[in-house]
Amino acid sequence: MRQQSKLQVTVRGAVIGGPKPLICLPLVGKTRARVLQEAETLVGLKPDLFEWRIDAFDKAENAEDWLSLLKELRTTIGDIPLLFTCRIDLEGGLKEISQENRLELFVASIESGDVDIVDVELCNDRDFVHSIKECARANNVKLILSYHNFKETPSEPFIYAKLVEAQIAGADISKLAVMPENYEDVLTLLSATNKARNETVQIPIVTMSMGPEGAVSRLAGGLFGSDITFAVGMQASAPGQIPIEGLRTGMALLYNQ
Amino acid sequence: MRQQSKLQVTVRGAVIGGPKPLICLPLVGKTRARVLQEAETLVGLKPDLFEWRIDAFDKAENAEDWLSLLKELRTTIGDIPLLFTCRIDLEGGLKEISQENRLELFVASIESGDVDIVDVELCNDRDFVHSIKECARANNVKLILSYHNFKETPSEPFIYAKLVEAQIAGADISKLAVMPENYEDVLTLLSATNKARNETVQIPIVTMSMGPEGAVSRLAGGLFGSDITFAVGMQASAPGQIPIEGLRTGMALLYNQ
Repeated sequence: MRQQSKLQVTVRGAVIGGPKPLICLPLVGKTRARVLQEAETLVGLKPDLFEWRIDAFDKAENAEDWLSLLKELRTTIGDIPLLFTCRIDLEGGLKEISQENRLELFVASIESGDVDIVDVELCNDRDFVHSIKECARANNVKLILSYHNFKETPSEPFIYAKLVEAQIAGADISKLAVMPENYEDVLTLLSATNKARNETVQIPIVTMSMGPEGAVSRLAGGLFGSDITFAVGMQASAPGQIPIEGLRTGMALLYNQ
Repeated sequence: MRQQSKLQVTVRGAVIGGPKPLICLPLVGKTRARVLQEAETLVGLKPDLFEWRIDAFDKAENAEDWLSLLKELRTTIGDIPLLFTCRIDLEGGLKEISQENRLELFVASIESGDVDIVDVELCNDRDFVHSIKECARANNVKLILSYHNFKETPSEPFIYAKLVEAQIAGADISKLAVMPENYEDVLTLLSATNKARNETVQIPIVTMSMGPEGAVSRLAGGLFGSDITFAVGMQASAPGQIPIEGLRTGMALLYNQ
């Protein structure tokens, strides 16, 4: 049995940090039609969570456009929890959006009542993170604080420290994604996750080693303490993601033991 | 892509240490009828290898009985490579067999022409191992030297050293199976395997972390350097083995990346 998170997070009945990791499908459509088409198709696959990557959307700067799309999205996915992400370009964001705009996006999404979790990078300045944290808390929206490195896998102590840092900074969930160069790097990520889960980090953890070598972390990372895994729905949102059906079959082998 | 073994072993066309780990199904029937029934049923699942655990067989002491069964087994499995194992009771053997008898069993099986690989524990005395090694070499049968620990997972340097020891002692394949207490132990096994593959051990390696926690090593161990994984056919021969169909599906997610 995997070690569960000490502080679990429940959104619309879904428990993050419980006995099994949850599967999240990213929505990365560029146009309104495409986002809705992805959601309509993928809702049938019954993921545990959806993530809307608004940095992939062509009208992310137009509040009227994206807020009405968000409302339609919520209708389409029903009661499946929604994670709202506006990834910063420094950490893999799909387009440049000013920090002012990003702050507005987060605040409006949180106040809409349609999103359950928002994901903000730890690299943002303290005031930025603080504003979103306060707004999220006031609206009962959960906060992921995250770190992404598409170039390399930092050392195990660095990864461990980042996972702890998110907790200290007030996150409800601590997330980290790094790029391996070889299988040793994959083990480094898994080992740091396992130590964080068992030793210090009480909130749910989400980690992954990206790319083809890291695919094993998307399948088995939950054993070592990762509480959400991102699968491929229509399109991958990061390298190494596995199609949801296969992922489910593979996970059943490991988590039903 | 996983790192392949520097010295690969080919038996009846099957490459051990190549781009993908091979799947082996153990035959652990107690009676002649049961062994043959297992083989007949399982041959349809097309494993890469079979292992006959003769220490599970009730007439292992009667050469006439088991040699004629071996012949029938070979006819049943056709050209699928056969690993012949007479596990010592100290390391998980299913019954006590004297060392004299074990030596006879190994020599007769090697000389029969029906087995392709034999598995002998490193804990046997040097003369015992040497006799089997010479006999195997003379008959073009491959030798696994193995270490099993059903109580615990030794340290990473210990595991590493055992894998190297098999190579130094003249094995064609180095095998090690240990029992984890937690997921950190599983990572220890995977990390030792990865280091052995990348740094020192040139022959194929077979490692597994047993029990439910270790199941991930049976699915993903090949990424870190394990060249054979044992699956469940009719009955498991060790704790944590996964049914072959599910294992294949799960492995396809990892090794086709």
